[in-house]
Amino acid sequence: MNNSLSDVFRITSFGESHGDCVGIVIDGCPAGLPLHVDEIQREADKRKSSRDRPLATGRREADKVEVFSGIFNGFTTGAPICLAIWNRDIDSSEYEKIKNVVRPGHADFTAYEKYGGFNDWRGSGRFSGRITAGFVMAGAVAKKLLSTIGVEVVAHTIEIGGVKSNPPQDIASIRTAMINNEVSCADPVAAAKMIDAVKAAGRDNDSLGGIIEVRAEGLPVGFGEPVFDTMEGCLAKAYYAIPAVKGVEFGAGFNAARLKGSEDNDAFTVIDGMVRTTTNNHGGILGGISSGMPLVARLAVKPTPSIGKLQRTVDLTTMEPTSIAVGGRHDTCIVPRAAAVAESVTAVVLADFAIRAGRIARVLR
Amino acid sequence: MNNSLSDVFRITSFGESHGDCVGIVIDGCPAGLPLHVDEIQREADKRKSSRDRPLATGRREADKVEVFSGIFNGFTTGAPICLAIWNRDIDSSEYEKIKNVVRPGHADFTAYEKYGGFNDWRGSGRFSGRITAGFVMAGAVAKKLLSTIGVEVVAHTIEIGGVKSNPPQDIASIRTAMINNEVSCADPVAAAKMIDAVKAAGRDNDSLGGIIEVRAEGLPVGFGEPVFDTMEGCLAKAYYAIPAVKGVEFGAGFNAARLKGSEDNDAFTVIDGMVRTTTNNHGGILGGISSGMPLVARLAVKPTPSIGKLQRTVDLTTMEPTSIAVGGRHDTCIVPRAAAVAESVTAVVLADFAIRAGRIARVLR
Amino acid sequence: MNNSLSDVFRITSFGESHGDCVGIVIDGCPAGLPLHVDEIQREADKRKSSRDRPLATGRREADKVEVFSGIFNGFTTGAPICLAIWNRDIDSSEYEKIKNVVRPGHADFTAYEKYGGFNDWRGSGRFSGRITAGFVMAGAVAKKLLSTIGVEVVAHTIEIGGVKSNPPQDIASIRTAMINNEVSCADPVAAAKMIDAVKAAGRDNDSLGGIIEVRAEGLPVGFGEPVFDTMEGCLAKAYYAIPAVKGVEFGAGFNAARLKGSEDNDAFTVIDGMVRTTTNNHGGILGGISSGMPLVARLAVKPTPSIGKLQRTVDLTTMEPTSIAVGGRHDTCIVPRAAAVAESVTAVVLADFAIRAGRIARVLR
Amino acid sequence: MNNSLSDVFRITSFGESHGDCVGIVIDGCPAGLPLHVDEIQREADKRKSSRDRPLATGRREADKVEVFSGIFNGFTTGAPICLAIWNRDIDSSEYEKIKNVVRPGHADFTAYEKYGGFNDWRGSGRFSGRITAGFVMAGAVAKKLLSTIGVEVVAHTIEIGGVKSNPPQDIASIRTAMINNEVSCADPVAAAKMIDAVKAAGRDNDSLGGIIEVRAEGLPVGFGEPVFDTMEGCLAKAYYAIPAVKGVEFGAGFNAARLKGSEDNDAFTVIDGMVRTTTNNHGGILGGISSGMPLVARLAVKPTPSIGKLQRTVDLTTMEPTSIAVGGRHDTCIVPRAAAVAESVTAVVLADFAIRAGRIARVLR
Repeated sequence: MNNSLSDVFRITSFGESHGDCVGIVIDGCPAGLPLHVDEIQREADKRKSSRDRPLATGRREADKVEVFSGIFNGFTTGAPICLAIWNRDIDSSEYEKIKNVVRPGHADFTAYEKYGGFNDWRGSGRFSGRITAGFVMAGAVAKKLLSTIGVEVVAHTIEIGGVKSNPPQDIASIRTAMINNEVSCADPVAAAKMIDAVKAAGRDNDSLGGIIEVRAEGLPVGFGEPVFDTMEGCLAKAYYAIPAVKGVEFGAGFNAARLKGSEDNDAFTVIDGMVRTTTNNHGGILGGISSGMPLVARLAVKPTPSIGKLQRTVDLTTMEPTSIAVGGRHDTCIVPRAAAVAESVTAVVLADFAIRAGRIARVLR
Repeated sequence: MNNSLSDVFRITSFGESHGDCVGIVIDGCPAGLPLHVDEIQREADKRKSSRDRPLATGRREADKVEVFSGIFNGFTTGAPICLAIWNRDIDSSEYEKIKNVVRPGHADFTAYEKYGGFNDWRGSGRFSGRITAGFVMAGAVAKKLLSTIGVEVVAHTIEIGGVKSNPPQDIASIRTAMINNEVSCADPVAAAKMIDAVKAAGRDNDSLGGIIEVRAEGLPVGFGEPVFDTMEGCLAKAYYAIPAVKGVEFGAGFNAARLKGSEDNDAFTVIDGMVRTTTNNHGGILGGISSGMPLVARLAVKPTPSIGKLQRTVDLTTMEPTSIAVGGRHDTCIVPRAAAVAESVTAVVLADFAIRAGRIARVLR
Repeated sequence: MNNSLSDVFRITSFGESHGDCVGIVIDGCPAGLPLHVDEIQREADKRKSSRDRPLATGRREADKVEVFSGIFNGFTTGAPICLAIWNRDIDSSEYEKIKNVVRPGHADFTAYEKYGGFNDWRGSGRFSGRITAGFVMAGAVAKKLLSTIGVEVVAHTIEIGGVKSNPPQDIASIRTAMINNEVSCADPVAAAKMIDAVKAAGRDNDSLGGIIEVRAEGLPVGFGEPVFDTMEGCLAKAYYAIPAVKGVEFGAGFNAARLKGSEDNDAFTVIDGMVRTTTNNHGGILGGISSGMPLVARLAVKPTPSIGKLQRTVDLTTMEPTSIAVGGRHDTCIVPRAAAVAESVTAVVLADFAIRAGRIARVLR
Repeated sequence: MNNSLSDVFRITSFGESHGDCVGIVIDGCPAGLPLHVDEIQREADKRKSSRDRPLATGRREADKVEVFSGIFNGFTTGAPICLAIWNRDIDSSEYEKIKNVVRPGHADFTAYEKYGGFNDWRGSGRFSGRITAGFVMAGAVAKKLLSTIGVEVVAHTIEIGGVKSNPPQDIASIRTAMINNEVSCADPVAAAKMIDAVKAAGRDNDSLGGIIEVRAEGLPVGFGEPVFDTMEGCLAKAYYAIPAVKGVEFGAGFNAARLKGSEDNDAFTVIDGMVRTTTNNHGGILGGISSGMPLVARLAVKPTPSIGKLQRTVDLTTMEPTSIAVGGRHDTCIVPRAAAVAESVTAVVLADFAIRAGRIARVLR
């Protein structure tokens, strides 16, 4: 029961998949940030399912962002910003049927046990990907805040179902390339193969996972508050709040474990009067603190647990084995939508570090 | 500047590598836990360098654990437990020479910038692996606490320099097998190869990284506080506080990204009247909550950044390129010692979750 | 910018007086608490202004409680509970006129300076008493939770404009007596005098303050988490979030400063097998921990700063002296409504302590 | 079990009265603050008992401040600062005798119940006034930090045993006047009477309480983080951590409850181009935020509960009534020593607010 993240730019999540709404409260956003609901809407739209995204869930929500508090006359006020989207297209019938038959790969069983069966199971309740709509709204505010100091974040799909992309290495090029396909992949050739793979899995009543890369540029040296609130640690904690994430690495990551020190160490040099490294195996973080080099993180996303294939499971009311084929509306591959969320929570964590490091004032003017 | 971890079993780290001492304050340990300093000492000894560990650092510290507060008549009192070890074998001369020449792969540069040059650079100061001695002392208390509810944790080396182990899959067997070699590897054949690899790297003035596996057994269903204080998120945050960790994954981890839903989903079944899964790709965590299956996590540790080989870098006083061969006393491979730390912080996080879930009372009797 | 209170039963406030709504998010309420919106509405009604309260503000709000999340099938789910009331009867015209003329005794000046003029000044924005509607909704949940362990809280007016009440000394009698008058005073004779005093002050374009007494019964021994999260400290922090509170005392309070130790010390005795004290100068708290005796706290409420009388002040745009007679809609004496809020935040703090002390489980069954 | 206070300048207390030591960890002190142990010692000396303080406890401790971490080359490093004093002059014999006979007015009973009898009862353990030595060491660091922005704090005795002082109204004069007497009273005539009263009470085996006034000058507008982290709320929480404090008020405080709005409201005016108020009933705080006027707080301190007079109580082992005359070494009146602590914790809270408001950078240069 801890639904708050980060420290001085602090977000608190509320809402359920099939309840009234999904929302977020941001406490600690500096006053004076110009902010319009349309900017938040644009970010929320990146995450939501739509007609333009044939691979995505059948649920059709307008996901219109509502600003309940904290913005006045076009600027943040320093007060908590409460943002929400209403749930409209709710159909809990599929869930009602199976509410005691725990779906493999889902939180049905653990949530049932933890909350004594009182949890709202409709549409996966608090464990639905829909909850991340709140994260994305908060991310929109965080991004706007980071833009005031020249920090930019992008997250894109670099692997789906084993198909790897060969993306460009800078945010501008990545953005340009990823926008043209619905898998948010910055390599058009790989994107086409990924889409084929997703369609094939869908036809097979199966699902696919993949890998997301997050990249941030423009970071000054000095974000991160070791020894416990490290850049890696706080980002990883945020990433693991995205359903289906099972791995997080930075820079060379797991591959660094196979390098020698002489290979993994990034040599320092001076570029334009600034200390930089010639390579970036450290992913922009040394000692838990940003180094001024681009932040590079990768997230492993497991395949969507909801599949039409028959799976063995247990009925909690009878404690007898049974089997289930999960109907309802769900994505064959959630990686692209998860990428939008990863981008957002990265921004939230970086905004928090920016304020803590004194890089963003408590009042902007 | 956030040196506290977790929530109700909360630890606060202090001390520097070449300062007076390294310590930890534990706030929130229930009263009534039988605890003797020798139990803490035993855990601290697992992390420390010793004559029996020829691969490890030249620094020779007794690392005798001092209990400053919180234990009385052989029991915890409910008051903060302050534990420390004194620094005795200090030789800062090697660091004095290079204090403005930032070592590649180290936090020298980022710490210098973040703290305006005021940070204690001797022996890497707060960024030394020695700081983790405090984590291990806290872990000793956490383990004792977890033992009251039958939870056990182990961390062992499963890869060094590309050499992979083939370990047993239960804690008892892992413990038995890993204790006989100084790389903490539960596969004697792999252990021998790892040791050879480390020695070879050392002769070459180079260093090696590797992978640690953490395993916890006896966990009840229901640890973890989603959506943000998930099991994965809180553990990952703790792991990234261990210097050199650059990747963290749970269960199938990054490999899950390449599986189909029908392959990755773990089927539920009933064993001895309990709901269990037939496989454990989820690593004991579903929806951020423990499932009752063994917790399985893996940590990627980069190679020790301190190497004798010449590396290119920058002198911060002149802002000119220079090169450095790092002397001083350091391990060719820190993976085995990092494993002891990973085991400890896992225990701290699990103890915190146990109390939060109401599984451990505030007073033990 | 910290709009969250307490620790494991944690509330986060949002909303403005003349914005869309005023709300609260409760994170950490145990699952399984039977809870109906009507129960929350009843508490909210105690705070709100109404036709039955001629002394109160002219603003007429339905203050209908909306449950956005966290309650399902009549029970709490363990998820965050978001509650809000919409603002309907908004008239910002009086505030528009004087927005740069800082009202004496109000937060206009300090908020303007702190938030760089970006704060929402309409109806006092975040500094309006209306914000406490969120506290009261949270208090309703907290009271229901406390009722499961037999803890009851009441707050009543014991002084207005110098008129002192002579109230009974137990909650049942206080409740019965206070309900019959609109000053929430448990002494009918004093209540009548208080009402006269308030009316007289109103006729004089002036305002009155007073004193609230909070009393809680049924508390077990052991609430409070010293040395910093003491019962007194956490309650006082909550009380000072109620606008206009300028003093807080417990038990004998300021009067204790004039007693001798032999007079102030409460003798211990055994009653029905329980250790109790024969007197209650300690107000139910010893060493920051509840003693099992009734909790007694008193809050000093300053007179409503909004008065029709002409007062000297400054126009921030010209930095010239000017004068102001505050129109708008406000209470001549806010003490009775503040009492409802004091009762509520007491319940929030006690619910938090109850969970922390392990007296209320994380799942109720 | 929460022994941490405040947010970004965060202190964590450890130690017991008759354990090894009493200490504090400060996390979040900016790097670059010039700081010498002697400066901390001077503050610690203000709190300690000494030969020059005949009214104070018989315990004779050197209370030599040890710096364990966080200061290097005469400056703070940005790392946690751990400070401690060793306990040397320990005599637990008096406490051993009465350990099951709960002393009236003390935490013996509540601590015994809360911690299941495992608490360290020697010398009152965690509930001893000696614990506040840690607060004072932290306060020394906070004061040094505040001095960099011109903020000064003083706390002085304004009443003991009913004897009231008539102190000057500015810090410089208060300091000068209070230093000459051992009751820390800024009015020499009243001081003499207070000393007489304390001596008389001591002869009578009784004790006295009193009132402390805290005053801070040089505060900018804008400290305090409403709605919950108000100036009053955070200060009050800190004050209630000082043993024996039972009341806290700000500005006109409880007296404000008897004023009319037209009397209590402080008129705004312009002085030297700054908005100020002509009176200070608000005690320097409006809406929970500092107004730029001097902060004025008052703390009610109950009489020392340890008295030689015979008192009725209970023996917890037999649950039978008994009586007790408290021996041991204790002060007849702790008000002057509590004043030193009040001054210290005020500084801690203000330092925290200063950093949060962006008034003190994370690195000082």
